[in-house]
Parts: sequence; C-alpha cells; structure tokens
Amino acid sequence: MMFPALAQSTSPRNLSALFNPSSIAIVGASNDPAKYGNWLAVRALRDTARRPAYLINKTRTTVLDQPASPRLVDLGQAVDLAVIAVPAAGFYEAIDDAIDAEVKVIVAITAGLGESGGEAKDRQSELVARLREADISLLGPNCLGVLDNTTGLDATVNEFRPGNVSIISQSGNVAIDLAEHLDESDLGVARFASLGNGADLHAADLIDSCVDHPGTAAIAVYCEGFGDGRNFARAAARAVDAGKPVVVLSVGRGAASTRGAASHTGSMVTSSVVLEAVCEGTGAELVSSPMEMAHLLQALIRTTPPTGPRIAVLADGGGHASLASDAVEAVGLTVDEFSTELSTRLALELPPTAGVSNPIDVAGGGEQDITCFARVAETLIDATETDAVLMTGYFGGYGEYDPAMRPREIQAGHDIGELVNRRGASFIAQSMFPDSAPARALRASGVAVYRNVEHASWALGRLARRAARSPRPVGALPPAAAPLTEVGYWPSRRALAAAGIPFGAAAEVHNVHDLHAAEQALRYPMVLKALGDEHKSDKGGVILNIADKSHLLYAWADLQTRLQPPACSIEEMADLTDAVELIVGVRRDPQFGPVVLVGLGGVYTELLHDTRCALGPVTAEHAASLLLSLRGSALMTGFRGRPPVAVSAAGELVATLSSFAAAHPEISEIECNPIAVTRTTTTALDARIIIDR
Amino acid sequence: MMFPALAQSTSPRNLSALFNPSSIAIVGASNDPAKYGNWLAVRALRDTARRPAYLINKTRTTVLDQPASPRLVDLGQAVDLAVIAVPAAGFYEAIDDAIDAEVKVIVAITAGLGESGGEAKDRQSELVARLREADISLLGPNCLGVLDNTTGLDATVNEFRPGNVSIISQSGNVAIDLAEHLDESDLGVARFASLGNGADLHAADLIDSCVDHPGTAAIAVYCEGFGDGRNFARAAARAVDAGKPVVVLSVGRGAASTRGAASHTGSMVTSSVVLEAVCEGTGAELVSSPMEMAHLLQALIRTTPPTGPRIAVLADGGGHASLASDAVEAVGLTVDEFSTELSTRLALELPPTAGVSNPIDVAGGGEQDITCFARVAETLIDATETDAVLMTGYFGGYGEYDPAMRPREIQAGHDIGELVNRRGASFIAQSMFPDSAPARALRASGVAVYRNVEHASWALGRLARRAARSPRPVGALPPAAAPLTEVGYWPSRRALAAAGIPFGAAAEVHNVHDLHAAEQALRYPMVLKALGDEHKSDKGGVILNIADKSHLLYAWADLQTRLQPPACSIEEMADLTDAVELIVGVRRDPQFGPVVLVGLGGVYTELLHDTRCALGPVTAEHAASLLLSLRGSALMTGFRGRPPVAVSAAGELVATLSSFAAAHPEISEIECNPIAVTRTTTTALDARIIIDR
Repeated sequence: MMFPALAQSTSPRNLSALFNPSSIAIVGASNDPAKYGNWLAVRALRDTARRPAYLINKTRTTVLDQPASPRLVDLGQAVDLAVIAVPAAGFYEAIDDAIDAEVKVIVAITAGLGESGGEAKDRQSELVARLREADISLLGPNCLGVLDNTTGLDATVNEFRPGNVSIISQSGNVAIDLAEHLDESDLGVARFASLGNGADLHAADLIDSCVDHPGTAAIAVYCEGFGDGRNFARAAARAVDAGKPVVVLSVGRGAASTRGAASHTGSMVTSSVVLEAVCEGTGAELVSSPMEMAHLLQALIRTTPPTGPRIAVLADGGGHASLASDAVEAVGLTVDEFSTELSTRLALELPPTAGVSNPIDVAGGGEQDITCFARVAETLIDATETDAVLMTGYFGGYGEYDPAMRPREIQAGHDIGELVNRRGASFIAQSMFPDSAPARALRASGVAVYRNVEHASWALGRLARRAARSPRPVGALPPAAAPLTEVGYWPSRRALAAAGIPFGAAAEVHNVHDLHAAEQALRYPMVLKALGDEHKSDKGGVILNIADKSHLLYAWADLQTRLQPPACSIEEMADLTDAVELIVGVRRDPQFGPVVLVGLGGVYTELLHDTRCALGPVTAEHAASLLLSLRGSALMTGFRGRPPVAVSAAGELVATLSSFAAAHPEISEIECNPIAVTRTTTTALDARIIIDR
Repeated sequence: MMFPALAQSTSPRNLSALFNPSSIAIVGASNDPAKYGNWLAVRALRDTARRPAYLINKTRTTVLDQPASPRLVDLGQAVDLAVIAVPAAGFYEAIDDAIDAEVKVIVAITAGLGESGGEAKDRQSELVARLREADISLLGPNCLGVLDNTTGLDATVNEFRPGNVSIISQSGNVAIDLAEHLDESDLGVARFASLGNGADLHAADLIDSCVDHPGTAAIAVYCEGFGDGRNFARAAARAVDAGKPVVVLSVGRGAASTRGAASHTGSMVTSSVVLEAVCEGTGAELVSSPMEMAHLLQALIRTTPPTGPRIAVLADGGGHASLASDAVEAVGLTVDEFSTELSTRLALELPPTAGVSNPIDVAGGGEQDITCFARVAETLIDATETDAVLMTGYFGGYGEYDPAMRPREIQAGHDIGELVNRRGASFIAQSMFPDSAPARALRASGVAVYRNVEHASWALGRLARRAARSPRPVGALPPAAAPLTEVGYWPSRRALAAAGIPFGAAAEVHNVHDLHAAEQALRYPMVLKALGDEHKSDKGGVILNIADKSHLLYAWADLQTRLQPPACSIEEMADLTDAVELIVGVRRDPQFGPVVLVGLGGVYTELLHDTRCALGPVTAEHAASLLLSLRGSALMTGFRGRPPVAVSAAGELVATLSSFAAAHPEISEIECNPIAVTRTTTTALDARIIIDR
C-alpha cells in the first residue's frame, strides 16, 4: 500500500485546447483503413474549414490525397492539439517533436506504454514531468481519443450522436455501450474523453472542464482508477454544486479488492464501499452498469426530482397498475390511497369502469379518448397529496390497433410533456412501446420514458433519494503527526487515549507484582485479557466477570498456563446493561485516503454487515448521522422499551478516531471494537492499530 | 378470511377442444372494426380450410361477407369452441344457446360480469355450476381469448409470433408486454390463454394442459389470484417434474397485502412471501416483471444450468471484463483465478496483449482473428475448473468497423452455438449489439444472448440456484381436527402441549392462593407474566429473573397494581445461556392454506426480517433446512465459539406446530415466539393462536 500525497485542493486545468483546438494534427496519419491513424485522419479532414487539420507521416508526402509532413516541427504552423497514433517504438520521438512544436495538448492513442508496468511505467512518469514543465497536457496514452460535438471536434474512432451528456471513460467499449443506451433513450453525447492510462489528465481534470462547459448537462464517468481520489471527490462535488449531476461507474465490487486486510474494518471497507462513501459525500451517483448509467442520466436530465415519496401511478390495465405499484414500493416509495376528493375529481375524466384510486387504471379510457391521460396527469400534478406521477403501460401502442388514433396519440405525448414542463412537475413514464412516435414525443418534450417499469421506478427512487440527501464536504486532511512506531494493544490504547478516545480504567500487567498493584487501583468486576494474539477472544484469552481477588488470581494462572501471553491487560468491566456495542474503524484507501467505518458490533457486523462508511475525517454530527442510518439503528434510539443511547457522544468518538487516523498516514487500519455506548457514556473496550511498514 | 376447501389432488382437465378445436364459432361476430367481435371473426376466417369458422350475429345474415346465423343452435353443425363476444346484457342467453348446441368449450370475452362483484358474481358462480354439469369448460369471462400457434388457433385480438413459450395470463397487456420482450430475444409463443375472471378454468388447469403439449418448452404465468392455491402448486410441481419450467409473475409485494395481521407471523407472511414459498417448494420460478420473465425464460430454454458457481468470463475489453466479473459476483457466483495450466492453454489462442486469467480479455484478438472466441470457448468448456462460461462485450459489433468481417463474425456465432450444443455446455452471452446478425446467429444456434451483462449474470445465477435446489413435495393437509374454541394464552399452551410442543414447567394463577401452590411446584428463577394483553412484554407485563419467594410476591403485587390482569402465568425461567431464540409461526393464506414461518427471534425478526417460509405442513427435515438457510444461521451452528444448538429438535418442533395448524383450518395465525433452542433442548416460551371467527 502506498501513501499518496492527497491534494487538499487543486485549481482546475484549462482544457479548452483539448476540446476546442484551433487546429489539429494527426501524427501517424495513414492510408491503411485498418489503422487508427487512418480513421483519425479521415475524421479530422471532414471539416477543415472550421478547424485546420495537418497530417504527419514519416515517409509519405501525401495521405488521403492531402499533403503530409514528416514531423510536427516541419509544419511551420501552430498546432493546438496533436493526436499521436504512431507505434510505441516511435512514440517518444513524436512527443519530443510535439514539445518542440509547442503544441498545447497531446492526445496519445499509442498503446504498449505505461500499462505494461516496470520500466515502461517509469518512463511514462518521466514524460509527464517533462510535459508539465512545458505546460502541455496529455490525454492517454493508450486511449481512444477525444470528441466534442459542441465544437465539431472529432479525434476519436467511434460515432457518438450529439447530445448533452459528457462521457469520461477509461474504456472505449464501455463508452460505446453507454452511448448505445443513451441513443435508445433519445439522448446523446456532448463530449467524450478516453482516459487510457491516465498518465497526466485524470477524471477529475475532465470533470472540472465539463463543469464550465455550457453544452454539458450531466457527466458520466467510467473509471477503474481515480488517481488522486481526493481531487476526484473535490471535482465531483464542484460539478454537483454547479448543477451538473455526476454519475460514476466503476469496477471491483468483488472479493479480490480487499485481500490482505487485517481487521474487520479492513475486510469490510472494499474499494466499492469506499466509492459509495465518496459518492454519498460528494453527491455523485454510483451505478453498477452502463444500463443503469443511461437510465439514471435520463432521469437526471429530464425529470424534476420528487420532493417526497408519494407516487401516483397512472396505468392503462390492472396488471400494469399493480406491477408498477409493486415496483414503486420496492424502491422505498409509496403508492398511498387517494383522498375521496381526488378520486372524485379523477372520476370526472374517466369512464365508469376506470379505477380512480391509486394506482389508477384508465380501463379502456385511452381507447375512448386519448386526451384523458393529459387531463388525469394534470389533476394528479395539481393534487397536493402526490409528490410525483408514474405513467405506465400501453401508451404508445394505441395507434397500433387503430392507425387513425396515431396523430392524436402523438399530440397527447406532446401535450403531457408541455404540461409537465409548465408545472415543473415530477413525472416519469414507462411504455411497452418506447420507440413509438408517441413515446418519442414524450421524450422530445422532456419526459423520461423507460421500456421497463422497474427501471422507471428505480430512477424515480434514485431521484427521490438524491433530493432528500445533503452532500457533505470532504473533510480536509490534518497535518501529519509524528508517526507511531509501536502498535501493540497498550501502545495503541495510550495513543488513542491521548487523542481523546475514552477507555475504561485498566492497567498493563507483566507479572504477579503488577497484578497486585493493579488490583488495588481498580474496581470489580474486572476483565483480564491475554495480549499478543489478535484473536484473543476466540481462543479463550479474555476472561470476563471477575468478581473478586481469588477469581482474579485463578484467571491469571489459567491464562499463563494455557496461553503464556507476553503480557496481560486488566480492566474494569463495563456495565453493558442497556448498552449498545459499536464497531468503529478507519481504513486508509490507496486512492481516497482515510475512510471511516461505523457499525453495530458483534453479530450485526460479522453476520449482517450492517455498516456505513464515509471519507474521513468526519465531524461528530456526520458520524452520528451515519450511525442513525444503520439498518439496526432502532437499537440506539429506544427499540422495544430499551433506553436510547448517547449517539452524539458516539459521534464525537468517531470524529476523534477519524481525525487521529487522518493525521497518521502510516496507519493502514485502525479499529475500536467494541465500543460500549450507554445512555450517557461511550467507552472503547478494545483497540487495534495496523501500520504499513 | 375464508376457509377454502383446498384440494389434495385433482385430475387434469382435458382442454384439447380449447387449444385445438375441430370447429369454432364467433358469437357476436361484427362488421364494426372497433369491436372485438370483428377482430375475432377476421382471425377465425383466416384459415377455414384447417378449421371451419361459424359466425353468429343476432340481426345480420352476413358478416364480413360470410353467412351468419342468429344463434348457435341454428347452425346445424357441431361446434367445439364457442367464443362469446356479445355485450353483457346478451351474455347469459348466448351461454344458454351454447349449452343447447353442446359446444365443448366456451371462451367468454364479454366483460361486466363477475368482476363487478355482488349479485353479478353470484350469477357467474351459478353459471359455472351449470357448465360443469353440462361438461363444458369456460375460459373467462372478461378475458382476451385463446391462441395456439401449434394448431393455428387464433381466437384473440393480438399478434403473438410462434415459438415455444406458453403464456397463461390474467392480463392481456402484461402478456403483450412479455411477448414483446420474448420477440427481442428471438423467442415466441406456443399458446396464449387469457384467464380473465377465472370463473371456471384457472391457471392450474392451463398449466396441466401445457405439460402434455409437445409444442410447449416453458410456461409463463401472470396471475393476480390463483384460485385453489394448492391445486396451482400441484400443477406447477407436475410441470417442473415433466421438465417444463414454470415462471410465475404476480403482484402484491406491497404493504397492503397483510393489512389486519395480528401477529409477527401474520405481518411477515405477505402474499408475495407465500408465493415465494410456493415457488421454492414446487420448483417454479418467481419473477417480478415481464422483463425478468423474458430474461429467465430465455435462459431456461437455451442454457444448460451450471453445475457449480465457478464462472469463466470471456470478454473483449478490460472494462467489460471487470463489469461482468462484478455482475457475476453480485449474484453469488464466483470468478476464480485460473490454474496456470489453463492460462497457458488460453495464451496459445490469443495475442500476447490478452489477459488470460479470469476474467479473460481478448484485447484485440477479436479484430485479428474472430475465430479466437470459439477456440477460447472450447478450451474453457473443456476445463474441469469452470462450471459455466459468460461471453461478454463487443461480439456482434466487429462487422460494424469492418464490413468484410461480418460473414466471419456470423460464422463464429454459429460455430460457438454448435460447440455449446455438442458439449451440452453451460454457456451464456451478452452483446452490446444484441440485434446484430452474429448475436442472432448465436441465439439461432441455441445460445442465450442478453443486451446487458447484469441480466445475463442474473439469469445464470437463477439457473445455478435452480440446479442446486431440490423442490419439495407440498405436504398433504391432515383431516380437520375438532376446532379450537378458546385461544387465550393458557388454552393455546395446553392445546399445543397436547400436540407435542415442549413448554417449560408453568402454572396459570388467578389469585394469591394459586400463586402459593404454583410456587411450591416450580423451581427458581421464575418469570411472571400478566395475561390478557398481547403486548404484555412491551408494557412491563413480564417480570423476569424472579429469584425467591419475596421477589415473587413483590412482582405479583406490582402486576396487580399496574395492570390488573385477569390472570397470570408463572413459569420456570429457561436458562438462555448459549441458547438461540427462534420465532416459529403459521399463517393460513386464503388461497394457499397454512404457510409456515421460521426465523431468528427478537431483533433479528423485527429489525432484520431474517425469516423463511414454506407451505405447511412441513417435515422436520425440511424445517431444519429452512432454519439453516437463514442469513444468521451461523448463530445456530457454532458462531465465534458458541456451541451449536439442536437444529434438528427445532425442526421437529416446527413440523409439529405446522401439522397442528394444518389440522385446524379455523386458525388464521399461530405463533411460538420465542422458542429457546440449546445444545440439546427446545422450549417454547410463549404461544399465541388467533382464530378466524
């Protein structure tokens, strides 16, 4: 594990020459239609009136019937953007030329460089240092180029239809996959930037550049690595603040990402858990597939978030009405019954066979008069008892039965869209016929339309959650303290106690003499712990409920005989009547730095994984809110007659532990487990620190 | 709540006249293209050479330029199938005619009948009795007809392309929705039957008829109500036994379905939980949307189930490789690293840039030689260290770049399919281009292909789960015992103890005299419970840890003063050291009869909903397997040094309780909570019976 220098703040880099260069050169332009250098040159030559394009080829004087130069420096023209698509062997020479030619940005398609690791990676790092000195930005290498549909720049090899989503991706195929999904939703791409090896420009830099880009409405990021994770978090938070949603897709949810973790905290803070915490904190949205990404982007771009959970379902057909209600409830929203007043108003717009409670079933009302959808939608939007409307089922298919209905159905789509826009209403739709003209009319007028009701409901649920939560600024890392060197149980306890973590009265004992002295200073009942083995409680190395001196001496003799520990700890036993046990830990993530974990202790942690995480350090108030968001949080707030416990004091403890960990970059994992929280007190009953040597 | 007479067994009804009638009559045939009677007649007339079609119209002598008769009895021809599409006012007259004309089956499109409830429902029930007497089956009323693409029967109003899925649906729109999804997967429909009100023919009858139908490979059921639920379970189990998968979609997952439940068991055994238990028991597959239904059907029809969890991922592109691995692991399957031997063999087939561990990234190998996919697939299929192969990513799109590649890519699709068939291999695919000719070639040769990797992985996970589980026969209901009349705490305890449920030593006490007598007979510590209030423990009506007589007298006085209970129960207190507390209950479902619930007690039940259900009665061995499948089951089998507890004895208790409940149809809910299970004993510490009056 490394200790990256986590930047506290970085001023955004100016990437206007990347996305809107005044001129472009294709280095490695080729006539061979199996080569990137050919595809890139073809595209660069499409609109030279808008943006002069220069072709560089070492051996040919013409490429694609256009003049070509052997080197960039031979051009005698200023070039903003150099796209390098030469084989790896010629890469560094091409870079030297680009530096000499004083280009502003390089996009490096060439593969077989830093991704091979070892010396190749070192050489790539040296290159980045040289480019920074020359004030040249580098996208890639090993990337698929850059595109900006708002400036007509196309320095990539795939088609991306114009739209307002900017895609930042480490994988070309994943970007294409996403773009296919967007296309099915009548959405398109503003900018596409392929990160490749991310040697210089990272996702954070590209997010920053999109925040200030008027053509970008939302930002989609596919990343396997985030470079300086704190800078990524800062950029994402800045975009969200600026009203540009950020949707993040990553990988590594599987078991492999935490191999080698030493504590519970370590094993539970997987890289995906860290990323969840980052997104939760910054207000970015984490998804798990290109499909989810497209579905969420559609909702973020088109749908006003609901201000509450109460969803009105407007269906044609009882089956779709019920399926939609189930799907809505499955994502934590509600389909409450309507008031009599609202049902009465709805009945005026629908045939007598219609169901006018929630979910509404227009029951043939659509065939009779397609305008009923807009009228019912208006009634629902104007009702104060609903927070959003989900229209579901057959709309889009009426014209299939009766072609004479098609124009009226299309008009109905426009009318509904116009109504939704006028009211600023939270309205989302599902149609069995998502490619039909009426469904496309809905989308064209700004209504998100999905093929499947579970996706429409899921998107609505994400919007509702988004509207209800408040992103929290990522806590700044404190200056590093003097590194810890000793991290056994007692050195850890002392360091944490000095930092303000409350422990019970206790003493370290090495021999019977120590034991007698400690016994005088402490109150019964006591607990005696054998030290030197991290799994002490599983091996009978912790003896609880020691009531008196004879019991203590017996326990001591027992531990010495069975386990021969190098030392023991004797501690006053906490009164756990009505106490709740917590686990609190911090893991240092190589990209994102300290990540705090809180959870209910014991079986809740190990069997049920009821834990929450956040980027550290956290404030006491943030920590308390994490505790209260645990599934089993009712245990802390008075479950079945239990007294509520001191959640705010527990929050203070978590904040203290997180600040301590943040000031000690040598700590890879730290854990207090359990912490006993009573009505009024918090006490750490065990502590463990693991440092990275 | 009703007590339906749950059939123990029913012999399947012969529905050959429904799906393959020798002749058909459309009653209510019409020239008006806005009427069902028109659409049905048009379709019936398409192939009269195969199947004579007669049109019945009360006033016209010709319809659609064909002769029409005023009544069925006027035809002078035997009619197998009468489709009735007259308005509700003329419905019963048309039925009388059909009976007189001795038709074999009636399909009733007419709406506005039993679904209106009240008298209309009674009249519908009387009709069914008359039809049964006349040995005439009825589909509907209020249905959308019937279709059999294997016999050319089309007595419905929608198009369903031919295929091997039979759809039984209570909703026409949901069936159309499903058929659209199937079409996207190059699947189609063998039979479609619309249940409508299900007055006579239920889903069970139609499942039975599809079991014996050679053209049906899989059965899709959308139902809101199941009629006699035990008969449905029997039919579903029979279909599964016969190798015809049954996929069930239903509604009612939301909160509304258990309003009015009195016990924890009652509130947790929702109608969707019951259906889950039914499907688990019968081997049917429960899904939650038409999309899921189509995805699972595709896998059930095309994919050999994996015999274990080890999935080899074959991707083109690192992003898709990682996303697929995450998706596979998210459904509980594994992406284990390959042995060196396997990686070495794979490396022989791929370029040096390829990743040859798991997940495989062919990394440009596809562009170089599209046949690499089949060769790598063959190596993976032949390896003993993998249970299934998931191919994911760009396959299907190579021809987009280079049209010259298209024929080879299509051939590759066929080759892979042929290989998979030859080996009987478990192989599934995802393609960004699912409509491409190569993807369709894969499907045509029997490989399931999905657009999204989470759906391919989900389907594979469902197949693996299906392969690993063993359906259990639904337990027969015992003869009804003499109904319980008194169900207070003590009458319930006595009845359950007599049935064999173990309780601790205890006595019912009404006054101080009883108390003294009981005190003599029992051992301390004791517990004193105030009776007469089901929420006694929440109101301080249960006093634990009574150590001696003075404490007991104090507790008695306390309860009398605070709660004035009509009686108390004094009980020896169970030693709960190392005991696990369970909840065991049975709820009688109006359709499916007794449903058993088991769970870990206390907070596990109430906060974490860690429970499992099965149709009752259950055997002890089945009950034990339910207990061991709880998320927190490790608590019973020796978690962190705890002793394992008597799971098999707990299973016996559950079996006893479930038999008792099954023999008492008047019991709507019964619950023992908690049950203390130690190393060797099980003891019910509380009991509650609710009867339906």
